[in-house]
Amino acid sequence: MAKVNQNFDNLVPNYLFAEIAKRVNRYVAEHPDNHLIRLGIGDVTLPLAPVVVEAMKKGCDELGCKETFKGYPDYEGYGFLREAISGYYKRFGVTVDPDEIMVNDGAKSDAGNMGDIFSKDNIVLVTDPVYPVYVDANIMSGRKIIYADATPENGFCALPDPSVHADMIYLCSPNNPTGAAYTTEQLKAWVDYANENDAVIFYDAAYEAFITQDDVPRSIFAIEGARTCAIEMCSLSKTAGFTGTRCGYTVIPKELERDGKNIYQLWYRREATKFNGVSYPVQCAAAAVFSELGLQQIKENLSYYQENARVIAQTLDELRIPYTGGINSPYIWLQCPNGMGSWEFFDCLLHEIEVVGTPGEGFGKNGAGWFRLTSFGDKDKTIEAMERLKQMLKK
Amino acid sequence: MAKVNQNFDNLVPNYLFAEIAKRVNRYVAEHPDNHLIRLGIGDVTLPLAPVVVEAMKKGCDELGCKETFKGYPDYEGYGFLREAISGYYKRFGVTVDPDEIMVNDGAKSDAGNMGDIFSKDNIVLVTDPVYPVYVDANIMSGRKIIYADATPENGFCALPDPSVHADMIYLCSPNNPTGAAYTTEQLKAWVDYANENDAVIFYDAAYEAFITQDDVPRSIFAIEGARTCAIEMCSLSKTAGFTGTRCGYTVIPKELERDGKNIYQLWYRREATKFNGVSYPVQCAAAAVFSELGLQQIKENLSYYQENARVIAQTLDELRIPYTGGINSPYIWLQCPNGMGSWEFFDCLLHEIEVVGTPGEGFGKNGAGWFRLTSFGDKDKTIEAMERLKQMLKK
Repeated sequence: MAKVNQNFDNLVPNYLFAEIAKRVNRYVAEHPDNHLIRLGIGDVTLPLAPVVVEAMKKGCDELGCKETFKGYPDYEGYGFLREAISGYYKRFGVTVDPDEIMVNDGAKSDAGNMGDIFSKDNIVLVTDPVYPVYVDANIMSGRKIIYADATPENGFCALPDPSVHADMIYLCSPNNPTGAAYTTEQLKAWVDYANENDAVIFYDAAYEAFITQDDVPRSIFAIEGARTCAIEMCSLSKTAGFTGTRCGYTVIPKELERDGKNIYQLWYRREATKFNGVSYPVQCAAAAVFSELGLQQIKENLSYYQENARVIAQTLDELRIPYTGGINSPYIWLQCPNGMGSWEFFDCLLHEIEVVGTPGEGFGKNGAGWFRLTSFGDKDKTIEAMERLKQMLKK
Repeated sequence: MAKVNQNFDNLVPNYLFAEIAKRVNRYVAEHPDNHLIRLGIGDVTLPLAPVVVEAMKKGCDELGCKETFKGYPDYEGYGFLREAISGYYKRFGVTVDPDEIMVNDGAKSDAGNMGDIFSKDNIVLVTDPVYPVYVDANIMSGRKIIYADATPENGFCALPDPSVHADMIYLCSPNNPTGAAYTTEQLKAWVDYANENDAVIFYDAAYEAFITQDDVPRSIFAIEGARTCAIEMCSLSKTAGFTGTRCGYTVIPKELERDGKNIYQLWYRREATKFNGVSYPVQCAAAAVFSELGLQQIKENLSYYQENARVIAQTLDELRIPYTGGINSPYIWLQCPNGMGSWEFFDCLLHEIEVVGTPGEGFGKNGAGWFRLTSFGDKDKTIEAMERLKQMLKK
C-alpha cells in the first residue's frame, strides 16, 4: 500500500485565523449595523505601481508575438532581473553577484522547500513567536525543532545561547509577527554562532523595505562572516505589493558549503528537478520595481503603510502601552493592557470598539498576553481605530 | 554541522542536453555557413493566443487599481479558473469537481513535490524510457525505484506486471519521450493494478491536447476505478504555449485515501505551508484558454504542430522506419536506421544533413538505438529536414 508521510500527524492544526473569522462573523451577524475596522490583515491593500503594471503588460504582449515569444525561463531567473536585484543590494551597500540570486514565486516557496537539500537529522532552531511556515515545513520533514525565546526582556529579539547546538536556524528580521528588528550587533551574534556551529541561517528579509533605522541592516550580508553561513530569502510581496503577483528571490553565496557540498549547486539541482522558473511577465514586473522610477513609485505605498504604523505607535506611546515594531516594520506587537490575555483583549476590542486584530498566542507561547496590529489598512480607518482605542482605555 | 541530504549523491548527472549542445556548437564553429534545422527542441515556439494575452493584460490592469487589486490568491487557485478547468474536462466526458482541482505554476512542480506527502518507504515504479523528473525527485527522497520496460514489443506502452509490487506509479500518456499513448484498455490495466496493490498513480497528462484517436483517453479519470487510485497532473505548457507563462493543474479525487488519510487534504496542507498560489494575471490568462474563443485560437497552434508531426510520420512511413508517436503527440520516437546507435545517428544527421534531434538513450536504457524528433519547429524547416532525411537514406 502507498503509505503517507506520517510526520504530517505531528502538525498542530493552527486554528488562529479560523477562530478569528468565527468570532468576527458571529459579532457581525449579531450587529448588522457595525462599523468594524480590520487591523489584523497581513496582506497589502494598495495597488501595484504604474511602471510595474506597464512592464508586466509589455511582457504579456511579447508572449503574444512570435518574434518576442518566450518559452521555458531559466530556473534561476532571467539575467535582467538578477542584475536589477544585484543593483538593489548595492543601494544599501551589499555586494551580491547576479549569479548568487535565484528568482522564485515568493519567499514562502523557498522557505518551505529549502529543507529538501538538507539532512533530516539536522536540529532546527526557530524563535518563538514565529511565522508558522518554518515550523510546519520542518515537522513535515521529521526534524527536531528547538526554540529561542523572544520575550519582552530581549525586546523580542532572541539571541543565540552558546550552550545550545543547532544546525539550521530560521531568522526573520524585521520580524513577523513582532515587528522587532535585529541591530547589526545582534545579527553579528547570530552569524558568529552559526559559523562556530557550522550551522546555516535561513534569513527571511521579506520586510527589509520597511527599515528606517541606520543600525538595522537591510540584509544579513551586511554582516561580516555571513557569506559562509547564511542564505537570504526576500520577496516583493510587501516591498512592492506583489502578494497577488508572486515574485521573490533567494541569495546563496557561492562560497557557502556544508558537509563538503556547495549549497548553491545543490539548490540549483533541486530547482532544476522540481521547479520550472517564474512567469516571464512577472519577472518583467519585478525588474521594473528596481528601476529608478519603480523605486520612487513603491516608496509612496511604503510611506502610506509607514504612516499608519506611526499613528498606531504614537497612540500606544500616549497610552503607555509597551510594544515592538512599527518603526522598521508594518507590524506592531503590543502588550495587552490591564493584564488581559490575547483572546480576552481580542474580544474586548471587537465588542467594545469594533476593531479586529490578531491574538499573539497564535504565533507561539511567548505571544500569550501580546497582540498584533498591522499597518496595511486604510489610513482614515487606522486613525479612527486608534481614536476608539484611546477612548476605550481612558474610560 | 548542518548536514546535507546525502540522497543527492545518488543522482546520475544527465549530460544529454549538455552533450548535444557541445556537439552542435563544435559543428557550427567548424561550419559557419551551416543551414542547421533543430528538431530536438521540447519547448513550444508559437505565441500565446490573442484572447489569452488580452485576459492576462486585463489582470495586470486590475492589480494596478485599488478597487480591483488582488492580494494573496487562494492556495488551490481562483474559483473562476477551477470552474473553467472543470468545464474543459466535461468536453471530453469526464466529471471533475472544481473542488478537486489545485492550480499550480506548472506540472513539474507538482510532479516533483507530490512525494512530500508520501512515505520514503514506498516503492516507486516508472517506465523506461522516462521523463527524468519522476526519477530524480524520488532519488532525492531516497525511495527505491523499479522500472517497467517500454519496448518495441509493447509499442513503448509498458504494462503492469502482476508479480511485481509498487506503491507509487508514474505514468505519462501521451508519453515524453516516446509519443506513445495508452488506449483505454491499456490504462484500465494500470488502474486495476493500482487498486489491487493500493498504489497511487501519478498520471502526467501534459500532452493530452494532442490526442486525436478516440480510443486514447484524454484523462485517466475516463477510466473506471481511477478515482480511487489516481492523481492527474496537467499543464497549459504544451496545450496553450504556457512554457514561459507558467500554469498547470492537479486533480485529486475527494475519495482518494491511503493509509487512512485523505490525499487531497494532505496535499492542501502541504501547499498551504510551502506555496502561496499562482499569479493573478496568469490565472486570468489560463481561464481564457478554456473559453470558447480561447479553445478555438489554441487549436490553430496545436494544428500547426500536429501538421509538422504528420509530415515527419509520413516521411518515416515512406522510409519504412519504425516509430511511435506523431499521431497523439508532438513527439516522434523512431528506430535509428541501419542498426545505428542513438549517438551515431545523431552525429550522422548533424554532419550529413545538418538536422538536430535527441538521442533516445538519454531517457533510459530502452532508448538505446532510438531517437526523438519533435514537431515544435518551423513548418517549412520541418518539411526541408524530412526532404534531407529522405535524400540521405535513399542514397
